[in-house]
Amino acid sequence: MVSNPSGYRSRDGFQWTKETGLQAGIPSLGVIRPSNNLPSTAQSELYDVVVIGGGYTGLTAIRDLAIAGYKVLLIEARDRIGGRSWSSNIDNYPYEMGGTWIHWNQPFVWRELFRYDLSTKIDISIAKEGGLNSEAVAKYDKMSLADRFAEVAHDMTPLERNMFEAFLSITCGSQTWEEASFFEFLRWWALMNYSYTDFIALGLTYKFQTGQSSLARGLFDEALATGNLTYVFDAPVTNVVDSADAVSVTVAPRGQPGAAAAATASYRARRGICTVPLNVLYKINFTPPLLGAKIEASKLGHVNRVSKVHAELANTELRSVGAFSWPSGKLTYGFGDGTTPAGNTHMVAFGSAHAGIHLQPEENIEDTLAAWQNLVGGEGRQVDIRRVVFHNWHKDEFAQGAWEWLRPGMSTKYLDPLRERQGNVLFASADWAMGWRGFIDGAIEDGGRAAKEIASEIPVASHANWRVPLRSPFVAKV
Amino acid sequence: MVSNPSGYRSRDGFQWTKETGLQAGIPSLGVIRPSNNLPSTAQSELYDVVVIGGGYTGLTAIRDLAIAGYKVLLIEARDRIGGRSWSSNIDNYPYEMGGTWIHWNQPFVWRELFRYDLSTKIDISIAKEGGLNSEAVAKYDKMSLADRFAEVAHDMTPLERNMFEAFLSITCGSQTWEEASFFEFLRWWALMNYSYTDFIALGLTYKFQTGQSSLARGLFDEALATGNLTYVFDAPVTNVVDSADAVSVTVAPRGQPGAAAAATASYRARRGICTVPLNVLYKINFTPPLLGAKIEASKLGHVNRVSKVHAELANTELRSVGAFSWPSGKLTYGFGDGTTPAGNTHMVAFGSAHAGIHLQPEENIEDTLAAWQNLVGGEGRQVDIRRVVFHNWHKDEFAQGAWEWLRPGMSTKYLDPLRERQGNVLFASADWAMGWRGFIDGAIEDGGRAAKEIASEIPVASHANWRVPLRSPFVAKV
Repeated sequence: MVSNPSGYRSRDGFQWTKETGLQAGIPSLGVIRPSNNLPSTAQSELYDVVVIGGGYTGLTAIRDLAIAGYKVLLIEARDRIGGRSWSSNIDNYPYEMGGTWIHWNQPFVWRELFRYDLSTKIDISIAKEGGLNSEAVAKYDKMSLADRFAEVAHDMTPLERNMFEAFLSITCGSQTWEEASFFEFLRWWALMNYSYTDFIALGLTYKFQTGQSSLARGLFDEALATGNLTYVFDAPVTNVVDSADAVSVTVAPRGQPGAAAAATASYRARRGICTVPLNVLYKINFTPPLLGAKIEASKLGHVNRVSKVHAELANTELRSVGAFSWPSGKLTYGFGDGTTPAGNTHMVAFGSAHAGIHLQPEENIEDTLAAWQNLVGGEGRQVDIRRVVFHNWHKDEFAQGAWEWLRPGMSTKYLDPLRERQGNVLFASADWAMGWRGFIDGAIEDGGRAAKEIASEIPVASHANWRVPLRSPFVAKV
Repeated sequence: MVSNPSGYRSRDGFQWTKETGLQAGIPSLGVIRPSNNLPSTAQSELYDVVVIGGGYTGLTAIRDLAIAGYKVLLIEARDRIGGRSWSSNIDNYPYEMGGTWIHWNQPFVWRELFRYDLSTKIDISIAKEGGLNSEAVAKYDKMSLADRFAEVAHDMTPLERNMFEAFLSITCGSQTWEEASFFEFLRWWALMNYSYTDFIALGLTYKFQTGQSSLARGLFDEALATGNLTYVFDAPVTNVVDSADAVSVTVAPRGQPGAAAAATASYRARRGICTVPLNVLYKINFTPPLLGAKIEASKLGHVNRVSKVHAELANTELRSVGAFSWPSGKLTYGFGDGTTPAGNTHMVAFGSAHAGIHLQPEENIEDTLAAWQNLVGGEGRQVDIRRVVFHNWHKDEFAQGAWEWLRPGMSTKYLDPLRERQGNVLFASADWAMGWRGFIDGAIEDGGRAAKEIASEIPVASHANWRVPLRSPFVAKV
């Protein structure tokens, strides 16, 4: 038990005990003392933004604006932050006086939990039993999908078996099931609220009207707008050298198509964040060298080496079709994904690697067209393919794989070392994120974690009055 | 149909059509040209952070760091951002080449959708029918909880009716059901994945070990650390005057307990964000005046005026108990919320307003102790109450209510005007957030929205090289 301050006493809230009777005012970490930091010239200043109210709405606004460099004035009627949501720690125990419960399905607050190191400090209110303990994790991580399927297949009707094979054929990116950890499947199942219906809703339904590269542009453009971002593309990294005072990164530029490559160049920074995917991380030379476990995990690699293949089809009746073709099909799991401006049906499907027949669509496009016929043609229907668009992630030199799906045993053995920092270099990737690992969401989670860790140790030059580093909030009990 | 650029051609991806045959490289909004913005001195600079990789992990890191003022260098092997997640717009239609589908249950990416104005630009991939249309919204928003209960009660068994009454008695904060909109219930039901089990998991299970004021401190302390935050507490706002060039806010400070109040003071800023809750907004004098609809909605108010009452009980057998007492009980819905360091059971319950018997615990503490006996005592069990801790939100002068629950008809009539900006003043609150309205999550959502809107129109003085304002990403189709 660590003894910690429970904060100053707020005017708000009441407490009764037999000994004290009813008393107004209880302590809170949210009480701010002194109650203002106004300069003597405050009334003649012109702030950029005045925020009225220090509940979570106002707190989020002042945080976002202050970090961006704006001069902000917060005005609050109470003696504390939080508004209708606040807590009081009394005798080393927190009482929640307003908004209390949070959940990973609440996107905005969940992100803040990670930002303030509270994601591992969650308590259970309404109590229930069960859950997956670490022994169960180890047991299921050792199993492959094939092992588990052999255990349960005899309990299934042919239709159930069919549907389950279809589901498995997409989750691990069509890889052979002997190579894929069953624990990863359990993780997906939990993320999908333990429901195939929710798997469809959460995993395969909603996408960006403008294409998701517009989201990527949102992040890039916002960083660029600050004037604090320098960038270089077409610049594969060959070497990373971490000395006591700087990280030096050497790149061997790719030439523009048709032009000679530029000369090797090196750049220096006080810290580095390496987001190189698991399956290619080992190819970069690190000094000092990468942790042994990182290299091992990277050379083993995750198993998902899918091709993502779109087709624009004149067959409009296919808009709401879902189809799978496993194990014989080269495209294994496909479905209607939209309608193109020409009124054609857009379908997407994933290329299979079963039994070594990995689809390499750029090597034999006729083979790919035939795979589409095989997947959604048949019963006399000729599929009229107008366009095929694809990315073969297996052959991609900078990823050598699609979304992460670890081999049996890898989750328990490698996730912690993969997250481990080495000196001035941090490693961040959707491949080892905590939540939606292998998804865009996991990438954003882990990039934010790395940025925040660095921000907690390097002062910002442009913040002339920088006062205290970021710190973890008080801990009221252990 | 708006014609828009689809971006430059990436090296990545392939396209086949009958006319062109197989072609390597497809366009993407994620291709960055020119491919670098390196200064001639780049190799001798010492950047704060070098980020290797421009997928979503790297993009998040560069964005967070650049906004915070750090000098960042991004190095990318490809000619585009996004890594294993990217899209290609071809003939005004987006093809997703990697990570595609997103959902509100994915906390990190969903927050980014709102940040980049993509939350209303979501497309349906796997198609399904149904959903709540605007006619249905209007119909159900006109109904009260009592109206709807009368329609369906006869279909319920006594036990079902009992459980349903318990559920209703907590959702709208124990208010009488005639005053509470049924549409708000449907909204909650959707947020809780249409499941009472999920309502328990999402709404009443997970909370902060350290108390949620530690999360509020996280946001406050991070803003303060920049040196860009000035604040004043105990300062209720009386007047807000918006002139063309500045917002002036006048406060009438509350004295520290036992001391005289300080004199009235006014402060100026270029923009203002007002986060004052719905039920008290009308009490502040605005010049120019608040929109008529804002005043109307504020004077009507939402109906939730609950008291939140904790008890520390020597009865350890109550840890996993849930109990409700409606309509007669003054505490209507209670359950075991934890175990205190002394080993006692912590229960929480919500004070009822049914039939006008609103619990005012600070006015009659004996009444409150009796309500606990009534709720969890009985059958010979004497409840041994060691401590009671509470906040009476009904009497709270700065909120006059707890979490938002609108009256019949208010959602359709007032939500849009409540969100409306007036001149240099923005209005943000969990009371009119888009997602988890009435929750901490909604507050964080709406505070972020307001901060971002201001950031898109005022340059940051400390960003000497500020180049372009934030803008919405390209729109590939309408």
